[in-house]
Amino acid sequence: MTNNSDHLVRRGWTPHGGQDAILPPHATRWLASRTGLGARSTPVAPDSTLTVPESALPEPAYKALADVVGERHVLTGRAERLGRAGGLSYLDLLRHRGTGAIAVPDAVVVPADPAQVQQVVEVCAAAGIGLVPFGGGTSVVGGVTALRGDKAAVVVLDLMRLDRLVSVDPVSRLAVFQAGVVAPEAERLLAAHGLTLGHVPQSFERATIGGFAATRSSGQASAGYGRFEDMVEGVRVATPRGEWRAGVAPASAAGPDLRQLVVGSEGAFGVLTEVTVRVRELPTVRRYEGFVLDGWEAGATAVRELAQARVLADVTRLSDPHETEVAFAMSGGWKTALVRKYLRARGILEPCLLVLGWECTSTEELALRRRATMRVLRGLRPVSLGTAAGEKWRHGRFSGPRQRDALMDSGVCVETLETATYWSTLSSLRTEVRAALIGSLSAPGRTPVVACHISHAYETGASLYFTTIVPRDHDDPEGQWQRAKAAACAAISDGPLGTISHHHAVGTDHAPYLAKEIGDLGTDVLAGVKRTLDPDGVLNPGKLVR
Amino acid sequence: MTNNSDHLVRRGWTPHGGQDAILPPHATRWLASRTGLGARSTPVAPDSTLTVPESALPEPAYKALADVVGERHVLTGRAERLGRAGGLSYLDLLRHRGTGAIAVPDAVVVPADPAQVQQVVEVCAAAGIGLVPFGGGTSVVGGVTALRGDKAAVVVLDLMRLDRLVSVDPVSRLAVFQAGVVAPEAERLLAAHGLTLGHVPQSFERATIGGFAATRSSGQASAGYGRFEDMVEGVRVATPRGEWRAGVAPASAAGPDLRQLVVGSEGAFGVLTEVTVRVRELPTVRRYEGFVLDGWEAGATAVRELAQARVLADVTRLSDPHETEVAFAMSGGWKTALVRKYLRARGILEPCLLVLGWECTSTEELALRRRATMRVLRGLRPVSLGTAAGEKWRHGRFSGPRQRDALMDSGVCVETLETATYWSTLSSLRTEVRAALIGSLSAPGRTPVVACHISHAYETGASLYFTTIVPRDHDDPEGQWQRAKAAACAAISDGPLGTISHHHAVGTDHAPYLAKEIGDLGTDVLAGVKRTLDPDGVLNPGKLVR
Repeated sequence: MTNNSDHLVRRGWTPHGGQDAILPPHATRWLASRTGLGARSTPVAPDSTLTVPESALPEPAYKALADVVGERHVLTGRAERLGRAGGLSYLDLLRHRGTGAIAVPDAVVVPADPAQVQQVVEVCAAAGIGLVPFGGGTSVVGGVTALRGDKAAVVVLDLMRLDRLVSVDPVSRLAVFQAGVVAPEAERLLAAHGLTLGHVPQSFERATIGGFAATRSSGQASAGYGRFEDMVEGVRVATPRGEWRAGVAPASAAGPDLRQLVVGSEGAFGVLTEVTVRVRELPTVRRYEGFVLDGWEAGATAVRELAQARVLADVTRLSDPHETEVAFAMSGGWKTALVRKYLRARGILEPCLLVLGWECTSTEELALRRRATMRVLRGLRPVSLGTAAGEKWRHGRFSGPRQRDALMDSGVCVETLETATYWSTLSSLRTEVRAALIGSLSAPGRTPVVACHISHAYETGASLYFTTIVPRDHDDPEGQWQRAKAAACAAISDGPLGTISHHHAVGTDHAPYLAKEIGDLGTDVLAGVKRTLDPDGVLNPGKLVR
Repeated sequence: MTNNSDHLVRRGWTPHGGQDAILPPHATRWLASRTGLGARSTPVAPDSTLTVPESALPEPAYKALADVVGERHVLTGRAERLGRAGGLSYLDLLRHRGTGAIAVPDAVVVPADPAQVQQVVEVCAAAGIGLVPFGGGTSVVGGVTALRGDKAAVVVLDLMRLDRLVSVDPVSRLAVFQAGVVAPEAERLLAAHGLTLGHVPQSFERATIGGFAATRSSGQASAGYGRFEDMVEGVRVATPRGEWRAGVAPASAAGPDLRQLVVGSEGAFGVLTEVTVRVRELPTVRRYEGFVLDGWEAGATAVRELAQARVLADVTRLSDPHETEVAFAMSGGWKTALVRKYLRARGILEPCLLVLGWECTSTEELALRRRATMRVLRGLRPVSLGTAAGEKWRHGRFSGPRQRDALMDSGVCVETLETATYWSTLSSLRTEVRAALIGSLSAPGRTPVVACHISHAYETGASLYFTTIVPRDHDDPEGQWQRAKAAACAAISDGPLGTISHHHAVGTDHAPYLAKEIGDLGTDVLAGVKRTLDPDGVLNPGKLVR
């Protein structure tokens, strides 16, 4: 075996770069006063200090893989393997700061195209080696953790070389992408045709088309562009039993929609190699506006009424009072005081920030759509903060992960989790999850901030996205979050009806809660499909189907 | 065993009733001149002339079923069994006119509620007896044909007693219906809450909520209200392995969407007993308008541009020149001439009728939505026929089946079929299917009329719905249509990409073409799910999974 270093050593976000990776002094001061955070720096551990076991990939398997992709595309070097060891959850990041053992793959295989992926899958199935598909590596639920399951070795299949826009049908508004195309590159390739995908999750800068499909991703503009599953028109999948394609028409009654069985399958049924997506005309006119409503109930009612009237802006995002407080605090203390005074004068005692963003192809379209939205919204007496507040949100829309890096450097336990439920249970679910997080994270000298927003709204319900900030328990950093996550998941799973994941998939972290949501028969159905397509169970061991 | 006659003896539409079940003289004249139709009446055969084998239901199974539902709900009488023998395809109707053998079930079981359905399923599984779920019995693809498969006997499970609205959540806009609720009754029950489902397929008057889900139905207002699968939020299913529920939130990333595996499963995985659907505010303002565009390409472009601008009217329906000719002819000859003259003066040589219908909750909503639609449409120079033409279509929207009865009485071979494809292949697929139908149905003295419309449009493509009218081949009436259907299916399946069914499901008629569409692995996946949920293969034998 040889080591290679000419491939990207993956890890982290823009490696500690960018303005937004530095906490401004006023934010640090606010955090200290609000949560009890002390001064303690906990930077990323140098890779050399991390424990990386020797590769257990058997020599014959290495040779078979190298025969398919070439020796220089089977990576067994320490840095390359560590670079694909796990995703980007708080626990993943902690472990890369040296808190605990990391599941490191025995090798990284980097095929060139769908045909090579198919061969790699077949080699692994024949050799009984686990195979973890890896796109942007941005999973926050352990979806790309290189678990071995009952296999002797596990390799990561990195899709970075499947980076092509295969074809565009501008009449049908369809584009075929290879699975490894990163979202910004997909947009760049489409923009040359005057088209856009419009899928902008917070992981946008690194996540891939294949990953979006594998996890049932949902972007910040899902109210306008739909969830990723709504965009998927066709899939090409490499399975141990051969290549499988699904999807021949925009809609069909020829049996169940098998595309929807592939979307969300997290690589456990096969490796997505191509995805055919619906695309749209590139917007030329955009408007983002901030509004404030008084209290959570008023805000949630506004979003519900917009959703049920089917006049949501493309981006529709409501922060609860706590997230609004964080937003105000992070943007500077003196402004907060002025804004609060301004709002109090208008009767707003518990401000909830509502961001509405439209992406249109003409000013006339924008005018008509905005009028329809405002017609419904007006009755709920929002206070406008104008386009500056909207643009501020838009400008920082992808900065969350980098801010998290900065917070982690400062010794903060910071993580998010999300769920969705129907409107009639939304407020009680928010209350329950919030209470679970606060209850499990509160400790002497550590006061958690638990903020929540609605970022995805439907006619029948909405998502709830929680962000938790609390000083880290340096004696048991992993356990601190694991207990909080367990408490929140129990609240979702046992309490008011909610899904264990609205757009982050199951991975390892939600696996214990899946059966409760889909039932024993649902679990059996997934296992039946797995047996059909991956009879030896080599694909993404320990994920989706155990 | 006893015979019972207090249950509805099902069959036909409003039994030969209504004005629209009689062909007006001008229509008969037009048909004669256009197709060569002669005068020959071929009415429905009296039931007494049809061959009905004795029930083969073993006595122990009868007793076990009677123990569950009570003796009076296990029907073994000739009329009751014939009344649930097959659906309402042209071939089904022909057979009930005495052209060939009818697959008659050995008994009809009529459970009272989901719990009894579950028990009936378990009795049939234990006894190895085929079980065909039966809602409105309106399948036009053999979906409810009582095939035995490898079983000694087959019973129809009639869901007519599962007729309740179980619950309504007006905040979340959700309603839970028992599967046997007929669409007009569902609307009546919802209207009491100021709500509507908005699912209006042509089978509306008889079809059921469970049937809509089982077949992935799509209604005439699908552009506004969505396909039925878009409305399904949850399902309750009776399977031989126990009861299964799916769906806890409007959207989820907790694995693949298993609801979408149940929707379209045609009773082969389980019997739908309850369906949770998204509902909407009852519209109070409606407007239906007729327009004419010049030629198919202009018309299809109009619908495509409306769909891609996301400003489709709730009902958006484009007739090709042939269907427009039929519509004009059926509504009276002298009017046609005047309309043609009017249109010619406006440069329309090959009129294509476009019906747009909005269903709104306020005049302001209607104004905003109509303005958005007309903004896109105006550039395509449509000629307005006003609201009278739109209202005429709306008034007759459910009359198709009754008109078909009248046409069949007059000796016509009349049937429909449908497909869907992406926009870039839509016109070539229409041409190919049209050619296949005309080629196979043309004969000396018999000239087919093949009409087509788009009734369901998406951003990436649309449906094509064909209606065929030709004098019946009285020597081989079944073969005449079977050959035409085979030719059309080959054109869809082999030629330009299309789905074998856009909203009529697979049933028996499309079964030979399914594997081509979903691939061998897709077929295996369905079989794997079937084995998981129905290991003895008793559910709807011969459908979906063979």
